[in-house]
This record gives sequence, structure tokens and C-alpha cells, in this order.
Amino acid sequence: MKLNLATLIVLGLSTTVCMAQSSGIKDDFKPSALNQPGQEYPQVNSQGYARFKIFAPKADSVKVSLGLGGRGGTQLTKNDQGYFTGTTEGPMDQGFHYYHLTVDGGTFNDPGALNFYGSTRWESGIEIPAHDQDFYALKDVPHGNVQQILFPSKSTNTSRRAFVYTPPGYASDSKTRYPVLYLQHGWGEDETAWMNQGHANLIMDNLIAEGKVKPFIIVNTYGMTNEVKWGKMRDFSIIPFQTVLVDELIPYVDANFRTLANQANRAMAGLSMGGMETHTITLNKPEVFSYYALLSGGTYNPAEIKDKSKVKLIFLSCGSKENPERVKSATEELKKAGINAVSYVSEDTAHEFLTWRRSLRELAPKLFRN
Amino acid sequence: MKLNLATLIVLGLSTTVCMAQSSGIKDDFKPSALNQPGQEYPQVNSQGYARFKIFAPKADSVKVSLGLGGRGGTQLTKNDQGYFTGTTEGPMDQGFHYYHLTVDGGTFNDPGALNFYGSTRWESGIEIPAHDQDFYALKDVPHGNVQQILFPSKSTNTSRRAFVYTPPGYASDSKTRYPVLYLQHGWGEDETAWMNQGHANLIMDNLIAEGKVKPFIIVNTYGMTNEVKWGKMRDFSIIPFQTVLVDELIPYVDANFRTLANQANRAMAGLSMGGMETHTITLNKPEVFSYYALLSGGTYNPAEIKDKSKVKLIFLSCGSKENPERVKSATEELKKAGINAVSYVSEDTAHEFLTWRRSLRELAPKLFRN
Repeated sequence: MKLNLATLIVLGLSTTVCMAQSSGIKDDFKPSALNQPGQEYPQVNSQGYARFKIFAPKADSVKVSLGLGGRGGTQLTKNDQGYFTGTTEGPMDQGFHYYHLTVDGGTFNDPGALNFYGSTRWESGIEIPAHDQDFYALKDVPHGNVQQILFPSKSTNTSRRAFVYTPPGYASDSKTRYPVLYLQHGWGEDETAWMNQGHANLIMDNLIAEGKVKPFIIVNTYGMTNEVKWGKMRDFSIIPFQTVLVDELIPYVDANFRTLANQANRAMAGLSMGGMETHTITLNKPEVFSYYALLSGGTYNPAEIKDKSKVKLIFLSCGSKENPERVKSATEELKKAGINAVSYVSEDTAHEFLTWRRSLRELAPKLFRN
Repeated sequence: MKLNLATLIVLGLSTTVCMAQSSGIKDDFKPSALNQPGQEYPQVNSQGYARFKIFAPKADSVKVSLGLGGRGGTQLTKNDQGYFTGTTEGPMDQGFHYYHLTVDGGTFNDPGALNFYGSTRWESGIEIPAHDQDFYALKDVPHGNVQQILFPSKSTNTSRRAFVYTPPGYASDSKTRYPVLYLQHGWGEDETAWMNQGHANLIMDNLIAEGKVKPFIIVNTYGMTNEVKWGKMRDFSIIPFQTVLVDELIPYVDANFRTLANQANRAMAGLSMGGMETHTITLNKPEVFSYYALLSGGTYNPAEIKDKSKVKLIFLSCGSKENPERVKSATEELKKAGINAVSYVSEDTAHEFLTWRRSLRELAPKLFRN
């Protein structure tokens, strides 16, 4: 059926195909890897163009929030079968992108795509295949587990949720203890982001299968980042989250998982606003963490580090389309001050998840080594 | 702000309020428990009416698929601020319901609600508070963990996903072994259903805290039910799923979790089409399971049970709005044949998740007791 359709297009609509070719858009569109089961749209091609198809026969206007930066997205065109279709004006950055539809002025998700929590709501997600996507692919290797835990929090009077990645072999063995990375999401996201959008579990499974990392546990919880509006970050107080993380979650994880429960075996990292949180909490609690990582999340000034002997690693990263010079120069300053600092710049990516997937791939082998 | 608005309505719109009162709809609407963070709509009132509010200023028509059975849902009315609002014509059954919007002829989810996988797509969900909702509430009791596992499947040449509930204490202890219930979703759903829609983990946490059940592990995986279209169930072959479950998943779980790995400590249950699967697989594999449960999923005929000594329990249930007489009479027939059979009918519910949450509450204390 699919083949017949493709044949039809090539034979019957050769003019259109020629036009498409002359515009330079290759006709090798495939369903996005993040589509709902059985859904043909949205699609992406090998150049990174995204194509959308939305059924809304009585609607006047359907627009997609994705497109070239700042140009306000992609307006779709209606055909006489009631489908709105359209292709992004240019190729998108490789990797994961959030988006939504505007249907006659209202905000809805694409019924073809899976949803991911970002921008303080469940948004549609699309995946532009990256040239290096193999490192976060689901492969036939031993897999770690991702478990939802509900931990008691007296300070907020709630049961709070966290996700815990345990490496392959954790469940069948009963003796080995592991170091722990506390890994935070960004503003508008929550504790689901690193596993759903970030594929942190698959990145770890693959690195472990290749023998590139010393296996460790990863913990994600909600950083309470969305209690403050975007652009008013200065109003954010770290204390409520720091209390949940350091006084409630860490003791719970240490009591319920086979952790190496000490500063030498504990890391904290975060992306974007999660980097801001990591920066503040690691400086406030030098006795708790020894490895620090900010992914598109700012830098450390050597003067902020009171006891340099307690810091085993500072890892700073961002996308090449962000501010890599700031990350690089901050790393040099830290090195000059005698701190083990490393920087990483993700090529051709901006403030988005491919930057952070790659950052985790680069960070993980450097953790818990010294 | 909310208070002011409520005051305004009472003072300024007393005519409307009187009309609403005379129509018998109580004005105590609250956001559904399944709304996205911070979303005020959809709302439900104490009588079970649901109220919707959708922003789509340039749309002509917004309809909600929920309403009274068979009457085609609830047509919303547009106000001059661009919001479509409306209330179901009558009260809804208590518990969980899937729904979607039809916006100018296209199918979209409600941007205010969380999404749940049903009808082979991620649908909006709404929760009508049940009078007995306490049994699946998140309480301040010890919580078990729900973990995603990716297990190798040679027969399908994939890594397949399952969710495993381990009871409180499983993670911190390293010796105790537990029986296992393999618990299946229905047609159109997947392995996320029992934890997301069913709150199976919270039901277990609460029952364990009350000392009402012998703690056990629960495993949910995808029953491959959606490979066949609704209404063509007779075309469904059980063999591919039976192979994944019995030859691949069970050995993986037994190798990676502290299970009691024998027939006496293994149960299978399923809802709706998952009940059909349970019925067939338990009869095909009497050496694998000893406790069988069909939740709105058919019955057993005593003549089907070849070796009655191998069956420790048959549990049959449904909602009172389904076909309770069939469940009750089948149970009597099984008892007459010397089988330990129990039936349960959920009051005032139909083919929906409150029936199945209650069925799990009734089933769990009867498992692994003899």
C-alpha cells in the first residue's frame, strides 16, 4: 500500500516532484521516531526538514510552532480532503524538538506525535535523526531499569516522585554498590524529561555495553523550577528544592538502593535552569557532591569554590549555537585555579536536547574515576 | 482571584445560577485530578457532571466525546472571549474516562488534561471522584516502586518494555522472594494502562499498608492486542504474545527479580481483551499459572479445565452495568465442579477502569493464600 502510494506520486505528480527537487528538498520523508503507534505524520527527511499533516476539515487555519527560528513557525495549507499539510521552510537542528499546533487560534497537540513535558505542559515531540543517533538508540545490549519511586517529603508534606536508573545487572546481583548522579531537568520540564526526551537510560546502557563508563545510578526528580515564571528566575529560591534533594531524596535513595553513600561517589548535574540549581546547591553543600556538571546551565567562577580539594570534576557544556566561548573560557579559568575542569561543545546544536544527550555521553565516562 | 471570580458569578449572574440550580446541577465544580499542572479545566462536580473549557477563538465548533452513552458527546458553546464551554448532559459514571475533542472536524486532545493510552492512541483522561476513591489514593504509606524494564525477545527480534511493581521493602531488603501477578491491559491500551489509569501501584501500597494482602510483584507488558482491529478479535492469534510472555518475559523476570519462580506462586489476570488472553494462556499453560482472573473479560467453563487440582483460584468480575449475571452463574458452575471460584461485581460501573481498580482491590487479598 505504501509502495503503491509512493509509485503514484512519482509517476503521476512528476511536475510537483520536480518542483520539490528544484527547491532542494529531498523526497525521502519518513515518520518521526516519536510518532504515536501506527501514525504516518509528522515526517522528517534526511536533510532535517519536517512535514506535517493534520485532519481538520472545517478549520480555517492550522499552524505548527516549529520552523525557522523567530519566523513564527509553519503555516499549513488545506487540501480538498480536509487535510492541512506543510513542510518547514528550512532544515531543523538534529535531535529532539517540542512543538504544538495552533488550530483556529487554539493551542493543541499534534494527534500523530507522542507528548513530552516541556514549557510547563505536555507538548508534541519530533525527532530529527542525528548523524550520531546511534549512541542513544535502543540496541540489543543488556538494559538497565528505570523505576518510579515515591519518596516521603516532610518539608512539602507530600509523597514526591523520582525516577531512578539502575544499571544492567543491578537487579540480579545483590551485593554491588554504585555511585549516584543526581541529574536535573530545565525550566518548564519535570522529572520525566531525562528519560523520555533525553534517553539517559539508553545512553548509559550503550556506554556500559562498550565498557566506557563505570556503572552508576542516575536519579531525576522535579526541581520545582516551574514555580517561577520564565524570565523571573531571580525570584526563584533554591531552599525548598535543596531541602527536598539533600535532606529527603538522597537519604531515601541511600536507604533503598545499593549506593556508595558518600561525597566521593555523588555527582550533581543539570541542564539549563537545572544547571543554575546544580551550581547553587553544589556550592551550598560541598560535603554532599564531588562532581559538578552544568549543561547549558552557566559556569563556575574559581572564587566561588571555597575548598578546591573537595571538587573532583567540574564539567561545563553547551551547544555551538549557544555561547561556547563563555564555557571554554570559564573552564580555562577553573583549570588555572587548579580545578579539574572539562568543557564540551555540541556541534551545530542550540539550547535543546541533543546538546544535553551528547553532554551526558561526554560526562558519564569522566564520573567516579578518581 | 478564584474567589473574586466565584463571587462575581454568584452576585452578578444570579439568574443563570438559579437556572443551573433548577436544572439540578450543583455549582461545586473542581479541576479534575488528572489535569495537567496548573490547569483549571476540565472540571467535575460532586454529582459527576463534567465541565469543559477550550480556547479556540477562530473555531466554529468544539465537541467533547464524553457525555451520555450513545448520544454523541457534548457540544460546547462559544463565548465572546473565544472560549468554548459546556457541561455533560448528565452525571458520568464514577472513575476514569478517556475522551477527546472534535475541533472543526479534527480529533485533538484537551490541552488541560493529561493523556492516557487507550483506543490505540494517547487520549485525554478525566477522573470523576468515586465515593470509595480512598483505596487508590496516594497516601503517606510506604510505597513500592514501578520500574520500566527492557527485556530481550528473540521471537519478535526486539527489546520489549514491561513495567514491574515491586512492593515496599523490596529495594532495601535483599533476601525476601515474592509471588508474581502478570496483569494485562485491554484492547487499544498498552503496558502503561494498569499503573497510569489503574493506579495498580497505589492500590497495592494501600492494601499492603492495611495488612490485607501478602505482598507480591506485578508485571505489565504489551499484549499485542492492537495488532487486530476492534470487532475482529476472532482473527487474533494468541501464539506470538504467549511466546513473549511465557518463554521470554517470565524467565527474564525470574532471573532479574527476587521471585518465587514456580506455578504455585504465579498468577495471570487481564481486563477485557486481556481477559481473553488470560483465559487462553492459562488453559494452554496450566503448568505456568495457578491463579486466574478475568476482569470484564469473559468466563471459564468447568469443562475447559483439564486438571482442576492445578487451579488454586478463578476470579471473575465485571461492572454491574455489564453482564453480572453471566459472571455470577459461571462462578457457580465452577464451584459446582469443585474449583475455588469467586465473583465480584462493581456497583454502578460499566466497562471502564473503576470496575478494574475495584476488581484488583478484591482480587489481590485472595492471591497466593493457599
